[in-house]
Amino acid sequence: MLGPVVPTSRASCATRPLPLTDVRITHGFWADRQRTNREVSIPIGSRRLRDAGNLENLELAAEQAADHSRVTGPEAYHGPVFMDSDVYKWLEAVSWEHAREASPTLSSEVDLFSKALADAQEADGYLNSYVQVVRGDNRYRDLAMGHEHYCFGHLIQAAVAAHRAFGDCLLWQVGLRAADHLTEAFGPGGSDGLDGHPVVEMALVELYRETGERRYLDLAEHFVTARGRSTIQGHGREPIYFSDRVPVRDTTSPEGHAVRAVYLAAGASDAAAEDPTLAAELDDALERQWASMVATKQYVTGGLGSRWDGEAFGDPYELPPDVAYAETCASIGAMQWAWRRLLATGDVQYADAMEHILLNGFVSGVSLSGEEFFYVNALQVRADAVPQDHRHPVNGRQKWFHVACCPPNVMRTLAQLGGYLATTGDEELVLQQYAAATIRAGGRAVTVETDYPWDGRVVVTVDDPGGDGRWTLSLRVPSWCAEATLTAPDGEVTRAAPGYAFLTRRWRPGDRLVLDLPMPVRLSAAHPRVDAVRGCRAIARGPLVYAVEQVDLPDRMLVDDLQLPADDPARLHAEERPDLLGGCVVVTGDAVSPDGTSGRFTAVPYCLWANREVGPMRVWLPVTA
Amino acid sequence: MLGPVVPTSRASCATRPLPLTDVRITHGFWADRQRTNREVSIPIGSRRLRDAGNLENLELAAEQAADHSRVTGPEAYHGPVFMDSDVYKWLEAVSWEHAREASPTLSSEVDLFSKALADAQEADGYLNSYVQVVRGDNRYRDLAMGHEHYCFGHLIQAAVAAHRAFGDCLLWQVGLRAADHLTEAFGPGGSDGLDGHPVVEMALVELYRETGERRYLDLAEHFVTARGRSTIQGHGREPIYFSDRVPVRDTTSPEGHAVRAVYLAAGASDAAAEDPTLAAELDDALERQWASMVATKQYVTGGLGSRWDGEAFGDPYELPPDVAYAETCASIGAMQWAWRRLLATGDVQYADAMEHILLNGFVSGVSLSGEEFFYVNALQVRADAVPQDHRHPVNGRQKWFHVACCPPNVMRTLAQLGGYLATTGDEELVLQQYAAATIRAGGRAVTVETDYPWDGRVVVTVDDPGGDGRWTLSLRVPSWCAEATLTAPDGEVTRAAPGYAFLTRRWRPGDRLVLDLPMPVRLSAAHPRVDAVRGCRAIARGPLVYAVEQVDLPDRMLVDDLQLPADDPARLHAEERPDLLGGCVVVTGDAVSPDGTSGRFTAVPYCLWANREVGPMRVWLPVTA
Repeated sequence: MLGPVVPTSRASCATRPLPLTDVRITHGFWADRQRTNREVSIPIGSRRLRDAGNLENLELAAEQAADHSRVTGPEAYHGPVFMDSDVYKWLEAVSWEHAREASPTLSSEVDLFSKALADAQEADGYLNSYVQVVRGDNRYRDLAMGHEHYCFGHLIQAAVAAHRAFGDCLLWQVGLRAADHLTEAFGPGGSDGLDGHPVVEMALVELYRETGERRYLDLAEHFVTARGRSTIQGHGREPIYFSDRVPVRDTTSPEGHAVRAVYLAAGASDAAAEDPTLAAELDDALERQWASMVATKQYVTGGLGSRWDGEAFGDPYELPPDVAYAETCASIGAMQWAWRRLLATGDVQYADAMEHILLNGFVSGVSLSGEEFFYVNALQVRADAVPQDHRHPVNGRQKWFHVACCPPNVMRTLAQLGGYLATTGDEELVLQQYAAATIRAGGRAVTVETDYPWDGRVVVTVDDPGGDGRWTLSLRVPSWCAEATLTAPDGEVTRAAPGYAFLTRRWRPGDRLVLDLPMPVRLSAAHPRVDAVRGCRAIARGPLVYAVEQVDLPDRMLVDDLQLPADDPARLHAEERPDLLGGCVVVTGDAVSPDGTSGRFTAVPYCLWANREVGPMRVWLPVTA
Repeated sequence: MLGPVVPTSRASCATRPLPLTDVRITHGFWADRQRTNREVSIPIGSRRLRDAGNLENLELAAEQAADHSRVTGPEAYHGPVFMDSDVYKWLEAVSWEHAREASPTLSSEVDLFSKALADAQEADGYLNSYVQVVRGDNRYRDLAMGHEHYCFGHLIQAAVAAHRAFGDCLLWQVGLRAADHLTEAFGPGGSDGLDGHPVVEMALVELYRETGERRYLDLAEHFVTARGRSTIQGHGREPIYFSDRVPVRDTTSPEGHAVRAVYLAAGASDAAAEDPTLAAELDDALERQWASMVATKQYVTGGLGSRWDGEAFGDPYELPPDVAYAETCASIGAMQWAWRRLLATGDVQYADAMEHILLNGFVSGVSLSGEEFFYVNALQVRADAVPQDHRHPVNGRQKWFHVACCPPNVMRTLAQLGGYLATTGDEELVLQQYAAATIRAGGRAVTVETDYPWDGRVVVTVDDPGGDGRWTLSLRVPSWCAEATLTAPDGEVTRAAPGYAFLTRRWRPGDRLVLDLPMPVRLSAAHPRVDAVRGCRAIARGPLVYAVEQVDLPDRMLVDDLQLPADDPARLHAEERPDLLGGCVVVTGDAVSPDGTSGRFTAVPYCLWANREVGPMRVWLPVTA
């Protein structure tokens, strides 16, 4: 089955994913993003990988693989130790895109890079251009920071995607050989070392799902359960940075490097889904740390990781908007974690969380043009900000990064987005996310019409009821919506409380189920312990959080001084602006400054900020005391 | 003349320092700290330098100096590249202490380490144990991060201190040879490279002052004026980190790595004081960036540098209390800068700033016992904080650090503290800081009696009026004090506005001038743009800022939830607590929590926090809305 996460039939699942190709996003917000991703971002990715030297690194490694006496040395190598992983994430994106709609260009890109990888791969399956070029045969010398398993993890994910998209192919073969090397070297009887950056856990479980080979699952379980004994350190970092301070089963809150933490939790969720014994050991801890993260360590934009130093989660309630790190990859990792837990539990909170992240702190990571990317998704940029790092948001989105993890991660996520829209059970189709789409699930087919996230009306038409036509259609009612209504095919209207609204009946072709999610402007307050935004409110409407940019203020007003005159959402107004930022709904209102200046402000969806002139911006607005 | 900063007679000085030995702090707050520094910290420093391998590094370098074919390699070297600088700062402290009161123990310590340095020094004067041990003759291969000039700077500062304390001695000779190597290698006709970490500028100016050799001043001026062309980068850092984004003359606000920025400004101030042409070029910029720093980038504790990432100044008004870095060394560097500008301008703001830093964010850097040190001086520690770095304040003060710059920096600063108490002009003695002390200035002598900072009464008795007895006695009235009075020898009382209160008369032995600085409890608010502490107040009394520690709260109350019921300092009470923390004045008041809990809280001086159980703490307290 085609998709990034395909639990086995034996897996413990409350609900199951649909094949990527059975969910087509047809138009609207996400369709536009997917088109730009395919037509602009992915082709750009190919050029950037060449320009940054990723391909040349593989060619140098191939020379070394062909002649082991040759070690080129660090001077010739381009970029950081995990350069290969950028290639793999991009190849994964290309594979999913090819699956969505076959393209000779995409196919030949996979062929070209697969060939480079195959040439670079050692006879025993080892493949890491950095180590091969710089250290020759000296493998696994720096497991803490060397990212060798991390690169294997992304290779295996790409290989699985390629296998699902293309069938047997060179990339799949390269991935299999790499995985076999890994089980040989780190499986039973092998090294007990642990890589400093999780991701291989998710990859190995998925490879187990694709091949049925238990040893891949066993190795993933080993990596998940052996972690947390405070043995990984170095490079000035302590075990907490490497998600190694406490075992997964004892974790109460995600901590340390945010991407490492959420990738590990996602991998642990995968392994637990396939192994009831492990699930018994880990499920409580996974639920506990998720709850702690959402309650105490997540920004209102969905962003995760408040510290630049160590790219880390801060302490509970340490959520400064200005110096927020909120790495794009951490948003992606959290969605991977949420998706896996949604499948395992069917708990709507995970689908709510995915919406929250997708439409705010994730998609803020890419420009409307698809050409530029944010690594850091801060919630405030000050006047007179002087960037001390090229990733600082005051520089605007960037074409690429020295550490280029985020751009291809965005690409693969957008390419697989359709897979996150709906799930299914034997007698149920569940709409988890809203976009105009056609969805097939087994013999059933529905069409979803909506202008989400700008408008909260979702119309589901049954095109083909399938079989005997009797099943349950469930629609997620987001937690932000207290006034939702559901209109049944017979015209009966009922209140739909947050959670899943559903209707079980014998469906006929043309039956329509309509969910109305009113979207009044809201003002959100943070928990009182979030000191950094005391006395402030964040504007929200529907699933979107808003931001005020300097470019939308009258000249005499400064974002840094802007205050809301009252904690009253009724004084704010939503306004459709088809002319602005590709078409969006803005929020307008009156603002004041401490010096008595007043005027109208316009707030735009946070995810669309920095698509014009980049200047001062803020999400949290002080309310005049 | 004995002291860390001794401008030449040609230097442009509004007021001049007194010899360290002419100002004796006799008892009270600073006398206790100086005694502990001498009796506990400095002896501990000697042991830590041996335990951490600093001495062994020098011995390895000596082996290499004796046999150039021998390069030991990185495995044998202990600690980071700037290990030698810890030795130098500690030797400087020992020298000043020996000058204050001669001691054979101190003297023999200097002899022992001087011998190790002399043995390690190359024939041409080069000396850097890291480079010699790890790279042999490969000098200056990594000026951006190698800290070679930085280490020379601290060596020269130690050598000058030793020369002033001991006269001609081995350490002085080592320092001179090093400086001569430096002028040879980087002076006219030499390399135009710049070190990534300023400090050598201050050192070279001081060496010029000690020797009269103009080439040292010239090299210092070169290093000051050549900087700022965005040529220094590497190790993932941009020029701003190295204080190299803009030239000193164009700097409007200190930026980047805080210690680098303030050390450079201090060195530029030194050079400008000795060269009127340079002063014309730099004075405005130095004043401008100081004003910007104090107004927009300094914590209420005097702390500097809000970012862990890059140990850096943040953007204007970016002053989060919880994730504050506020490195002890940055406080010290800012005082060095302030002292040099005070001498040049006589502007009271610099003396005010020194008091502010000394009594809060500087002396917080060392425990009451003198055995442990803070690297990071945060203004808030949360409940459930999990340290991600050994320097995090939740770990409490530490015995030493892998990067051990702060402890010996504290030691040398406390040893030279007497020198900061007073300055003099031809017909004037100016008391800049208050402590019980005896002060001689030329033929004049006064005794200062005070229980500062606990009590604001300062009694100055003229012991010897000197010469014809006619001169001006000036006393700083701190900017925090609006109600000061001055009582003349004849009993006449006048209001003393912030600035300098002075009395010019023909002094007779026994004449008393009394300054009364009332110390009601105050509540400080931050600028409205300091988002992180919106709606909060900081408790202050006299020169001290206060902090609430969990250990002083009733069990049912948590620091994280504590709020002041009103923005009214009259509801807070100062209370003498001779039993607490070596004797101090605490502030007590009523507090409430969002859940309705209420109770009494006790706040202690910020500089004394973490001397008992280390737990949640905060300086900024929310006021109930």
